[in-house]
Amino acid sequence: MRWVTVATEDGPRACGVVRGSYVDVNAADPRRPATVRGLLALGEGERRAAWEALEGGPVRYDPATARLLAPVPDPRKILCIGLNYRDHAIESGAEIPGEPVLFAKYATTLIGHGAPIVLPRACREVDYEAELVVAIGRGGRHIPRDRAFEHVGGYTVGHDVSARDWQFRGPARQWTIGKTFDTFAPAGPELVSPDEAGDPHDLGIRLRLNGQVMQDSSTTQLIFGIDVLIAYLSQVMTLEPGDLIYTGTPPGVGMARKPPVWLKAGDVVEVEIDRLGTLSNTVVAENTD
Amino acid sequence: MRWVTVATEDGPRACGVVRGSYVDVNAADPRRPATVRGLLALGEGERRAAWEALEGGPVRYDPATARLLAPVPDPRKILCIGLNYRDHAIESGAEIPGEPVLFAKYATTLIGHGAPIVLPRACREVDYEAELVVAIGRGGRHIPRDRAFEHVGGYTVGHDVSARDWQFRGPARQWTIGKTFDTFAPAGPELVSPDEAGDPHDLGIRLRLNGQVMQDSSTTQLIFGIDVLIAYLSQVMTLEPGDLIYTGTPPGVGMARKPPVWLKAGDVVEVEIDRLGTLSNTVVAENTD
Repeated sequence: MRWVTVATEDGPRACGVVRGSYVDVNAADPRRPATVRGLLALGEGERRAAWEALEGGPVRYDPATARLLAPVPDPRKILCIGLNYRDHAIESGAEIPGEPVLFAKYATTLIGHGAPIVLPRACREVDYEAELVVAIGRGGRHIPRDRAFEHVGGYTVGHDVSARDWQFRGPARQWTIGKTFDTFAPAGPELVSPDEAGDPHDLGIRLRLNGQVMQDSSTTQLIFGIDVLIAYLSQVMTLEPGDLIYTGTPPGVGMARKPPVWLKAGDVVEVEIDRLGTLSNTVVAENTD
Repeated sequence: MRWVTVATEDGPRACGVVRGSYVDVNAADPRRPATVRGLLALGEGERRAAWEALEGGPVRYDPATARLLAPVPDPRKILCIGLNYRDHAIESGAEIPGEPVLFAKYATTLIGHGAPIVLPRACREVDYEAELVVAIGRGGRHIPRDRAFEHVGGYTVGHDVSARDWQFRGPARQWTIGKTFDTFAPAGPELVSPDEAGDPHDLGIRLRLNGQVMQDSSTTQLIFGIDVLIAYLSQVMTLEPGDLIYTGTPPGVGMARKPPVWLKAGDVVEVEIDRLGTLSNTVVAENTD
């Protein structure tokens, strides 16, 4: 099952990707939710039933012209894990963490495939980070590691855009401010169900900047796997359907290069993850009027 | 105007506090929103009209028995400012920040007046922090400082519960994980409109632990005032109706005491802010089954 959220005149609409078109879930069967977050709140069986009801759905959008939002445009939480690939921790000059590092983005950062990343006029050092993103299906607290995958609703491709000049600023060096500018969390195009994603700990992940490969790694290299992250985070807080976990980035980011590479207007950034797809966004300058 | 959110069998309901009872806004006039976030999304004039329609409202709850949630139980963002009182920065061993320090809590932290703060079994060093909380009314991006107060929908009393043993852990010392355990953001009892709150930069703020005064300061001591915070944050992200800003805590926290003071089961924590009210919560141990 592959789900997208299409921006329509009636607001965001959950659609399934069926034979090259986006079929509106709620229009196909009015008993089904109109949002992907609503679908994630269903049990696996009901979500499958919603999928099967798509055949012959009356409202469909053409991927060539539809405007996509992030697959879950309205999550209650965006949980971001830092320094979760060994080589990236080293290139960042940080120790290898002994447990996951958490920071936040707010939902105002989310944009879909094809939407512009807006380079804030307040930032000079805006960097890219390719990431595998997990969407929570069934919520829970104190989820044991060996049951964690029962709580995964799907996977998508993510991009953790990061203003380094803001991220490391101030005496307390809290990263959140540099991570949460509007449009700094592209995600998509599709939310892919676990059965189609295969082993999430064995997916190639690449980032291309204007066609040049800047990051090229595999989720085999994650320090803390998805089951460990879900167990760890749910020790602290109740996970809810639709919550997103950005699982960290592999090496090759712009700040670690000599000279450093920063995003500029006109750049095209593509993040590709095996089996999940390719997320492409163009960088534009913030309007200065 | 004073608003609360009451937990009912029909879910959270926005009520106005009228002559000692909680009057359901939407029941008094079905054209009005059923949530405080919905009220905050209205213009000032419409919010006032909703208030005036409360007289004679058919559904009212008795404050003696009603169960309160946080006044805005479902904000899209909880923006927390650290080290925003000079003496607290000093007692924390931190530099005085040159600009605001931002970290996040997730909405799963929010509880209302009278609800229990659950001491997680994973934490040993849980501390208290009294805070003035701002709720955004009209949203916006790039809000100039001199228009910032037009975007304030109200004020409430907040408590930023903080697990110090988690907050400062790991190589990157990101605070969010220690700040976002379930129940770690009591708020309330009421959301108070700006006209009733008076000058938000001149309010006494106190915290009592089992009756003993532990923090006793004034919002005159804020390093970054509310207008500065709104201008700063909106430079980064779009503020939305119902977003909460926890503005930081004055000196006197438990970790700065010798010996340190940590919350324990049975403690009663009261945070009091002039004109806004008193937020009281009892600490309970997390169920260990």
